[in-house]
Amino acid sequence: MPQFNETELTEAVIKSFEEVKEPRIKFLMEELVKSLHAFVQKTDLTFAEWEYAIDFLTRVGQKCTPSRQEFILLSDVLGVSMLVDAVNHREREGATETTVLGPFYVGEHKVMPHGTDVSPALAGEKMFVQGRVTNLDGKPLANVPIDIWHADDDGWYDSQKPDYETAGPSSRGRFVTDAEGRFYFRTILPCSYPIPTDGPVGQMILALHRHPMRPAHVHFLVNAPGHEPLVTHVFVEGDKYIDTDVVFGVKQELIAKVERRTDPTMPDGKPAAAPWHLMTYQFRLKPGQGAAPKPMAVTEDA
Amino acid sequence: MPQFNETELTEAVIKSFEEVKEPRIKFLMEELVKSLHAFVQKTDLTFAEWEYAIDFLTRVGQKCTPSRQEFILLSDVLGVSMLVDAVNHREREGATETTVLGPFYVGEHKVMPHGTDVSPALAGEKMFVQGRVTNLDGKPLANVPIDIWHADDDGWYDSQKPDYETAGPSSRGRFVTDAEGRFYFRTILPCSYPIPTDGPVGQMILALHRHPMRPAHVHFLVNAPGHEPLVTHVFVEGDKYIDTDVVFGVKQELIAKVERRTDPTMPDGKPAAAPWHLMTYQFRLKPGQGAAPKPMAVTEDA
Repeated sequence: MPQFNETELTEAVIKSFEEVKEPRIKFLMEELVKSLHAFVQKTDLTFAEWEYAIDFLTRVGQKCTPSRQEFILLSDVLGVSMLVDAVNHREREGATETTVLGPFYVGEHKVMPHGTDVSPALAGEKMFVQGRVTNLDGKPLANVPIDIWHADDDGWYDSQKPDYETAGPSSRGRFVTDAEGRFYFRTILPCSYPIPTDGPVGQMILALHRHPMRPAHVHFLVNAPGHEPLVTHVFVEGDKYIDTDVVFGVKQELIAKVERRTDPTMPDGKPAAAPWHLMTYQFRLKPGQGAAPKPMAVTEDA
Repeated sequence: MPQFNETELTEAVIKSFEEVKEPRIKFLMEELVKSLHAFVQKTDLTFAEWEYAIDFLTRVGQKCTPSRQEFILLSDVLGVSMLVDAVNHREREGATETTVLGPFYVGEHKVMPHGTDVSPALAGEKMFVQGRVTNLDGKPLANVPIDIWHADDDGWYDSQKPDYETAGPSSRGRFVTDAEGRFYFRTILPCSYPIPTDGPVGQMILALHRHPMRPAHVHFLVNAPGHEPLVTHVFVEGDKYIDTDVVFGVKQELIAKVERRTDPTMPDGKPAAAPWHLMTYQFRLKPGQGAAPKPMAVTEDA
């Protein structure tokens, strides 16, 4: 006889998965149910709190559009995205640390010549970025495509702007390493910026008395054959939000000293208007396989 | 220095709640983060699984409309709704067991005279429902409003039908107990029915090789002054889905033997076309307070 009370309910839900053939799906569903039920029991969740949660999740889902993923944002601000990243990159063996892809990766970028200014039309102080890609032994990796993207001086990514379709990419590009594993380009110094606060996740952050800011950073996606694709950021040392990144993306090793320079030329010998900034970073890749991530889209209800 | 790796991340997210003043909200957020992080770590959740979860939750949210709450359905089929009900009704002291409200309660119904047929236009075998409302000592409670609602012979609630606005309520009504705490009405014998399977939750149920069926039942909401509002169902004994209710709503005590009768009159002395069915149930209420639940609506992003 059924008796779906507090004592027998969890077991009954788990039993309902007994026909699931795939062990991984069965395991995930069982752990999900155990975890949800333990949360309700530990917190003695009230009806009002449950209703609030139902309504909140509904609003998060309804805020999503083809260009806005509010559930990823929720995962980000609760540290879940970074934890998924962490459990999938446990053994670094000296390779560069990973961090989250973020919602502003739009897929493979157009290859540009080294030294290109990827932000020619933007206000802000100029920055020269130079990097090197090696394997774990420090041996340079040549012909490696590197996608880079970052926010502008007002905290917006190109893909967030209403004129993105017509204006085209900005602060975004792809470079391919030379025989010494080197690449370099010009852009502007990025600044810290808020995650979108006009949706339920932003409202939650503010209600929790958290700031919505991410410290200034440049995204890198380094994808060398025979090596694990590397998804990471390089953060600007000294940013006031570096200890309290709203999405918990910072790792010590990923913080770079960005030097303020007044030299009349940049490292490639071309003239510079002072002052400018220099970001230098070396990426060390781990041998392995794996497909580079793709941007996530909101799918239709199949 | 920040180091949001697997070891330090959970503590860092919890630390981000340090400015929250309300102890209950702080506690809930902390437990939520601990629970989510423990799930990711225990399952070594892959990126593909995380992306699937993000996409699934998004589709659940986008399926919600003013008349469709897919997140409640998700909560229901994972046993979460029943567990929330259970932890909020731990001490029954002999009072009638509770179960979930369900998504088809539309708010207070119109009072009808005892004996009214609430399903005059519907196909199906007739059923006479008679009940009594008492306190824990068995003393009758008079003038108590009782909302009742159930599905029709095809498994649909009136509020799910396209003509609901014009056709008005069906298999739905309110009765007020007499001096002996009694009430009675006519309707049709309800049948088992599937939860909606045209959305992501239905797809999940089918992918897990679960059936989507609820055993036949009548909903009751009994709301007596000075007593805890009682939200429950009475289930029809012998239903083939009674042991495997897709929302885990069944409790032994809530199963009623529904008798098949061939008498030419019903218990109120009025003539009946044979065969008909008799459902009898006694509701015992616990002293207490509390507002009766209200139907949930999809709110706008505030």
